[in-house]
Amino acid sequence: MKIAVDAMGGDHGPAPNVEGAIQAAAELNVAVVLVGDEARLQAQLQRMGCRDPRITIRHAPQVVEMHESPAQVARKKRQSSVWIATELVKAGEAEAVISAGNTGAAMVAAFFVLELTKGVERPAIATMLPTLTGHAVMLDVGANVDCTANHLEQFALMGNEYAKHVLGKVNPRVGLLSIGEEDSKGNEVTKEAFKLLKASPINFIGNVEGRDVYSGEADVVVCDGFIGNVALKISEGVADTIKKLLLKEIGGSFLGRLAYPLIAAPLLKLKRKIDYAEFGGAPLLGVNGICMICHGRSSAKAIKNAIRRAKSLAESRMTDLIRQDIEESLGRHRQEAQHEASA
Amino acid sequence: MKIAVDAMGGDHGPAPNVEGAIQAAAELNVAVVLVGDEARLQAQLQRMGCRDPRITIRHAPQVVEMHESPAQVARKKRQSSVWIATELVKAGEAEAVISAGNTGAAMVAAFFVLELTKGVERPAIATMLPTLTGHAVMLDVGANVDCTANHLEQFALMGNEYAKHVLGKVNPRVGLLSIGEEDSKGNEVTKEAFKLLKASPINFIGNVEGRDVYSGEADVVVCDGFIGNVALKISEGVADTIKKLLLKEIGGSFLGRLAYPLIAAPLLKLKRKIDYAEFGGAPLLGVNGICMICHGRSSAKAIKNAIRRAKSLAESRMTDLIRQDIEESLGRHRQEAQHEASA
Repeated sequence: MKIAVDAMGGDHGPAPNVEGAIQAAAELNVAVVLVGDEARLQAQLQRMGCRDPRITIRHAPQVVEMHESPAQVARKKRQSSVWIATELVKAGEAEAVISAGNTGAAMVAAFFVLELTKGVERPAIATMLPTLTGHAVMLDVGANVDCTANHLEQFALMGNEYAKHVLGKVNPRVGLLSIGEEDSKGNEVTKEAFKLLKASPINFIGNVEGRDVYSGEADVVVCDGFIGNVALKISEGVADTIKKLLLKEIGGSFLGRLAYPLIAAPLLKLKRKIDYAEFGGAPLLGVNGICMICHGRSSAKAIKNAIRRAKSLAESRMTDLIRQDIEESLGRHRQEAQHEASA
Repeated sequence: MKIAVDAMGGDHGPAPNVEGAIQAAAELNVAVVLVGDEARLQAQLQRMGCRDPRITIRHAPQVVEMHESPAQVARKKRQSSVWIATELVKAGEAEAVISAGNTGAAMVAAFFVLELTKGVERPAIATMLPTLTGHAVMLDVGANVDCTANHLEQFALMGNEYAKHVLGKVNPRVGLLSIGEEDSKGNEVTKEAFKLLKASPINFIGNVEGRDVYSGEADVVVCDGFIGNVALKISEGVADTIKKLLLKEIGGSFLGRLAYPLIAAPLLKLKRKIDYAEFGGAPLLGVNGICMICHGRSSAKAIKNAIRRAKSLAESRMTDLIRQDIEESLGRHRQEAQHEASA
């Protein structure tokens, strides 16, 4: 098993990518190909005293900056580390690609190079959220901002497969993020998606409200990428605000200062859980290959965790499972259309 | 100044409404007309030993239940407490209506009885959020689920007037809730709204991300009612989860148990701040009259606070200010259309 890492991506340059790759090779028994500026990566490996033959380098002359638009990347950056790393997956030289760089660039590379899985209309980024009872999968959290009901149905199918794998549940409870539990609540798109999901073979539990996301009522929370991204960032904002306000209140008293470490540690833990970076990256589902998107601030540990997850997704043949589900779903829709036409 | 209270609305029946009205009359020098079942309200007043002549009762033979749809209410519940309370505002017998009952019923009554302010296409519920530096206004948080860019522009104008009043700021910073700070980020609707807001006379600071909502970067956060409602409820969910996880961690140690009250109190305070109920209700902006929507769980104090805010909104002639702003905005749009036509 070989994993391609966009070694130039991320806020901290090659260091955490290289270090994460070294740790992964040692602990997870995988080969890693670091894609990027050969001289810099060679120097980084030497600095870290790495002589592991499972770590190799593939030169890429270009780097995508954080501010570059996906359109620019597709036109002018096909020699960049993220693009070439993705091409290694396409060519069968690697089983997965991992990038902590520009998210739009990783998506556009996956879209053009790996291409969409047959039948998938839009890919989706699936993240893990902490809940009171464990974890839940939320998707899409940023790949698509304007979605139709059909897109949401496909996200539900893809999230269902991912949750089976990552949460180890046989029949994950899939909920649709909306503004009330009743069937009739929601906007035009979610009301239509509700009907599609009710007719699908997954374990659809209906609408879930914002406040149920963290209580653990659903294993999979389906939404469009605009809502999902706002929801994630609002969550970060609330957690951060609570932490700051609490520490302020607590810092004002002697007893409070004694208790400080007791409170700071669990808050930090929670913040890390919410931040998908720390959780080992979020896959872009719906493309022909495993593509893990990591936060720009990813540490070496986060990169190692992303490599671990990518390996296990590749081993479970996630891409094939999703293709089968989507094909079956399209088959059902065709049958329904025929029934309606002949009725 | 007389305020009409839907005395039958809310999870706890007439008690908190009546008690809140008594407190308001005593502290705020307002008259309150309690609308609902005369016998029950009379009995409640007697139980509370109220002989204040500023508290009066207006009989309403019907009550709207929490599960009833707005359409049902408009067809069959025009003799309900919330409907008749709203009619008192229309007739000039009261300056504002307050309801802790079914939100959809309060909205539909305001919509049919008070009607939309001239030029306003959709009303919006504006709530107050706590931030690291004070408070911010967010709208819409649930009146409209499918909005156009023009609706968002109107929400911005209405929120701007409300923020001037409620935050006491001369030139509130107005932000558009989106998924990135750059102009180009967002969905189709927010990208179009961005252009409209940039051309408007308000202090538009551009897109704000979810995580900026609570940091206090904007005084007014504009979004559609679907996103706003999800964002509010996600916030409640995160706050609740953090509280539960923290208390669990803390309860496990002696030092932690000592610190418990230090942490529980600020958490409760924050939760109350987020919950618009406790904050004295949220106005439905864009109708011809003051309509305050309170949470079903409202306490007497919350009802009193809602009466206080309603009084101050009525005194500031909020409805007239919003009408002027919307008229000016429509005037600008007409001029632009003429320019384009003649160009």
